[in-house]
Amino acid sequence: MAPFNLIAEPGSHAILVTQEFNTPRHLVFKAYTDPALIPQWWGPKNTTLTVDRMDVRPGGLWRYVERDSDGSEYAFRGVYHEITSPERLVYTFEFEGMPGHVLLETVTLTEQDGKTVVTDLLVFQSVEARDGMLQSGMQTGAKDSWDRLVELLKTL
Amino acid sequence: MAPFNLIAEPGSHAILVTQEFNTPRHLVFKAYTDPALIPQWWGPKNTTLTVDRMDVRPGGLWRYVERDSDGSEYAFRGVYHEITSPERLVYTFEFEGMPGHVLLETVTLTEQDGKTVVTDLLVFQSVEARDGMLQSGMQTGAKDSWDRLVELLKTL
Repeated sequence: MAPFNLIAEPGSHAILVTQEFNTPRHLVFKAYTDPALIPQWWGPKNTTLTVDRMDVRPGGLWRYVERDSDGSEYAFRGVYHEITSPERLVYTFEFEGMPGHVLLETVTLTEQDGKTVVTDLLVFQSVEARDGMLQSGMQTGAKDSWDRLVELLKTL
Repeated sequence: MAPFNLIAEPGSHAILVTQEFNTPRHLVFKAYTDPALIPQWWGPKNTTLTVDRMDVRPGGLWRYVERDSDGSEYAFRGVYHEITSPERLVYTFEFEGMPGHVLLETVTLTEQDGKTVVTDLLVFQSVEARDGMLQSGMQTGAKDSWDRLVELLKTL
């Protein structure tokens, strides 16, 4: 399998992203859960990110504000439902520009021989909402995040 | 369409429950959002329900404890993500007996000629989790809730 892989089967509510890192799992988990690290890798290249809220516990809220190169801002938010260090995160995800559209994200980290595989499962309210996310350029953003996270992990 | 209908297409992450009520929409919405009314209809017959928490606003928690006829208790919880009166609720749902298993529920109420149709869309983290919910007797519980809600609405 490629070190970055996105699967979206036709007619499904889900997207599955699989990412490989040459880094022990506890460091990858830290990158997902440390508010100081999120702005260094989350989101497309050429954007800057501010962590507005990040209360990493079940029921806790997160909210990130992304600013692109022309100054436009996009806010994302959600609620953590499970935090099992260093193996699993479950949370919801909303783009504030599309109120009422919520997706459920499950991030699973597995380690083997010092490498970590992260599976990121996104399930949407409808197949149409899933397809809309794919058409919005989500794949490029996810690939950028993976590239940025690979670079960040080299420094930890 | 029948006044109570459950659709679960093979291989899908979703279950769609459609319910019809001979009651104006604002009263059905009230039954879904009033902590005093939930114990009167939510869950299978021959169970009693306690509303432990019900903070009906985006980000607010809900938690219900169901007690069956032999005294066994089952707790359910989630987080509200959207509350648009009287037409839409989006929230997460977890059974505390299965930590980390979360589903996303979208309840949409439409009114026509004094009748209300409620569509209840549940999306699961996996097709297997969806199938597990169906095998757990969820259909009977949902049908019971609908029957109980029909009776309750006659009294409002």
